[in-house]
Amino acid sequence: MKNMKIIVIGGTAAGTSAAAKAARINPAAEIILFEKSDTVSYGVCEIPFLIGGDITDENKLIVFSPQKLSQEKKITVKTLHQLEKIIPSKHKVIIRDLNSSSIIEQKYDRLILATGASPRKLNIKGEESRNVFYIRSHSDTAMLLNYINNEKAKKAIIIGAGFVGVEMAEAFRKNNMEITLIHNKELPLDDFDAEIQQMILQELRKNQVEFVPNARTEAFINSKSGKVEYVVTNKGSFETDLVVVAIGVVPNTEIFKSARIRLGLNNAVKVNNMQETNIDRVYAAGDCCEVKNIVTGRPSYVPLATNAVRTGWVAGENAAGGKAKFDGAIFSAAMKLFSLEIARTGLTEKEATSLQYNYVKDFVITDSKVHFMPGNKKIFIKLIVDKLTKRILGAQLAGEEGVVLRANTIATAIQTKLTIEEFSRLDFSYFPMFSPLWDPLLVAANSIKRKL
Amino acid sequence: MKNMKIIVIGGTAAGTSAAAKAARINPAAEIILFEKSDTVSYGVCEIPFLIGGDITDENKLIVFSPQKLSQEKKITVKTLHQLEKIIPSKHKVIIRDLNSSSIIEQKYDRLILATGASPRKLNIKGEESRNVFYIRSHSDTAMLLNYINNEKAKKAIIIGAGFVGVEMAEAFRKNNMEITLIHNKELPLDDFDAEIQQMILQELRKNQVEFVPNARTEAFINSKSGKVEYVVTNKGSFETDLVVVAIGVVPNTEIFKSARIRLGLNNAVKVNNMQETNIDRVYAAGDCCEVKNIVTGRPSYVPLATNAVRTGWVAGENAAGGKAKFDGAIFSAAMKLFSLEIARTGLTEKEATSLQYNYVKDFVITDSKVHFMPGNKKIFIKLIVDKLTKRILGAQLAGEEGVVLRANTIATAIQTKLTIEEFSRLDFSYFPMFSPLWDPLLVAANSIKRKL
Repeated sequence: MKNMKIIVIGGTAAGTSAAAKAARINPAAEIILFEKSDTVSYGVCEIPFLIGGDITDENKLIVFSPQKLSQEKKITVKTLHQLEKIIPSKHKVIIRDLNSSSIIEQKYDRLILATGASPRKLNIKGEESRNVFYIRSHSDTAMLLNYINNEKAKKAIIIGAGFVGVEMAEAFRKNNMEITLIHNKELPLDDFDAEIQQMILQELRKNQVEFVPNARTEAFINSKSGKVEYVVTNKGSFETDLVVVAIGVVPNTEIFKSARIRLGLNNAVKVNNMQETNIDRVYAAGDCCEVKNIVTGRPSYVPLATNAVRTGWVAGENAAGGKAKFDGAIFSAAMKLFSLEIARTGLTEKEATSLQYNYVKDFVITDSKVHFMPGNKKIFIKLIVDKLTKRILGAQLAGEEGVVLRANTIATAIQTKLTIEEFSRLDFSYFPMFSPLWDPLLVAANSIKRKL
Repeated sequence: MKNMKIIVIGGTAAGTSAAAKAARINPAAEIILFEKSDTVSYGVCEIPFLIGGDITDENKLIVFSPQKLSQEKKITVKTLHQLEKIIPSKHKVIIRDLNSSSIIEQKYDRLILATGASPRKLNIKGEESRNVFYIRSHSDTAMLLNYINNEKAKKAIIIGAGFVGVEMAEAFRKNNMEITLIHNKELPLDDFDAEIQQMILQELRKNQVEFVPNARTEAFINSKSGKVEYVVTNKGSFETDLVVVAIGVVPNTEIFKSARIRLGLNNAVKVNNMQETNIDRVYAAGDCCEVKNIVTGRPSYVPLATNAVRTGWVAGENAAGGKAKFDGAIFSAAMKLFSLEIARTGLTEKEATSLQYNYVKDFVITDSKVHFMPGNKKIFIKLIVDKLTKRILGAQLAGEEGVVLRANTIATAIQTKLTIEEFSRLDFSYFPMFSPLWDPLLVAANSIKRKL
């Protein structure tokens, strides 16, 4: 369709990727992107590095300005414009211009929903105080940086020890702040198994992060100045200068319900492999959507930037008349926490158990280099292999070097459904400074083979 | 067969691996390993690190002593015993005991040939001088170290800029020696394509290694003390305190000819995928053998430690009554040269051209991390993709960090015959400290896809 109008709702990773791809596929299309905040194309993953001081210029986090998207990609960008309603029968969306509070009716030929996700809230009193922060957007970051600098915050409580929580713990420690990390489970980072979680806990403690396990946050006690001064939990009360709430995200899909857009896990939008929703002409992408897990073949909710951009591309291409497909993902995630690299790909044992796989697991500790080479470090690898098919279901790695890039090699094997036998025969290079004669991955593979 | 006698000739990577594997598979077998030198299980790949001083204790390079092989693996090891003749019709080998010069007749039920390869010689006068060295064995290393220390060598000439030659250049530079590297081609490291070779040359020059291209060594001029003092080439004469000859290796197979063992490329033994030679009951493994290239399906001669151990395992298992198979290899090799990491896997463009593949190539320069993260370095990736099948045929990478482990990820893709489209969809993790949102490998994949 020439001169089609493609409306994109949301301007972070998925929305801008979708819009840019649509513009490339169909240069004659008119593409309008509405974003409720004042910033598009913001690098959410990099926020902790800005807070921690590794990145000093916040502008670096903005990949595209609205002007740049308009000039380079031919996309009309309207910030501070919020979706109010979708009327599929009329191919129309209702948008509120937050500058003037006026209402706009916008027709579409194709609609791409990339509304993302918002920080989950505790929903307790005091959470709206000016020293309670979330880590999700440009304005979150600006407010937090401003607060730390102006009020010389010395103590912080972080509620939730997921990726964001532990990254923020490190960022604050780089600012020499005292950190208490409150978590509702025994160990930090639920997305890993206990073997790696124990190492994460040790790394946090080694770096003076106080970890409070099995803690339920019950109340915020405010000072007269309207700031939270104490966080009350079932494990005691903790004094603080500021609070970060990092207990996960919820997809921004509430508004889709009246349009009868089908939702699935976590209320994320159900889409097919072309990123089509159940509603004609309506696509969805990014953190507001489910993602198919390639290992299990089932839907999952894994709001990662990589998935956001890829699903954005597919939605954008298809909205513009293409036939792109998204294979799904395998939940590859990694981080460096102080001096510990950790990575996961495929399924954890917890996930394999809950999905009732018949699996074998193994946990090996081996050398990152030839053991007598300078700089050799230990590397820790957990593998999970399906007993029936002998395929690698998942891997988790930890150590001080060479962890994350190795995880990508296993990710390749998992996604292409290699058996552990095939994996163990891979021809990797050998150089004493980079691995022992048998790379740690092959050591792990040979070890678990003996258990099958 | 119970109480079978398995004779192994050669005690470096392939021979000891074969013997150990045979002992594990058939604990009742009698296994005797003959090694012509005084040392078994010597870490040849680590020699440059010993010369360079990264490793200070030479004993570290000996993985197993004869005693340890005997005690732990139940292998009888006879050093200073050299193969003289194979008599297949009588299932017998003739061995010379170099201690006493006496001759031993040894019957075998199975024979494993792992005689390895020897440094190729220039065959010019003066090459036998005591300051001309090869880098292949324990005694080579001991003599070289001894010479450097005792004679305070300040200048060295290295003939041949392959892996060993450039590694030795770095090792000598760490000893503050002046280095001239003489090569018979325009660029160093023939196993790479020109894009990467240029970077290697630059790295050598940056580190004060004088590289003399297109040079043919014509003569050694000796001093009165019987040492080479000048190396004469068609590009001039060079004064030196010592010479290293590193112009490749030749398989030690001369002695096999009288037994009518079939030889192939470079006179290496032809074996099937069970490491069987054409002669009944006779197996071969390691640097004396051809290796099947998985990408081309053709024999190749790639004397690497990884292939030696793997083919040793297969030969040992099958000699002991098993049914193991060796898939072949893809010529994955890597090194760090001063601060430059380089790696290759699969075919180079030179190889693809000579094999008449119809290929597309691409060379991208991208970031190893998010470009504004501290420590970001450039990474250089050359990809070669088959036009017909769209499979990745080969890759070469260079850069200051994150090169070699990434090459292993591409090796996985090449060995499992992924198309570039499949490769570009791989779900790698993203963390700003380890890669840009799109890993350099995916950037390279997406770039070459546009050329297909």
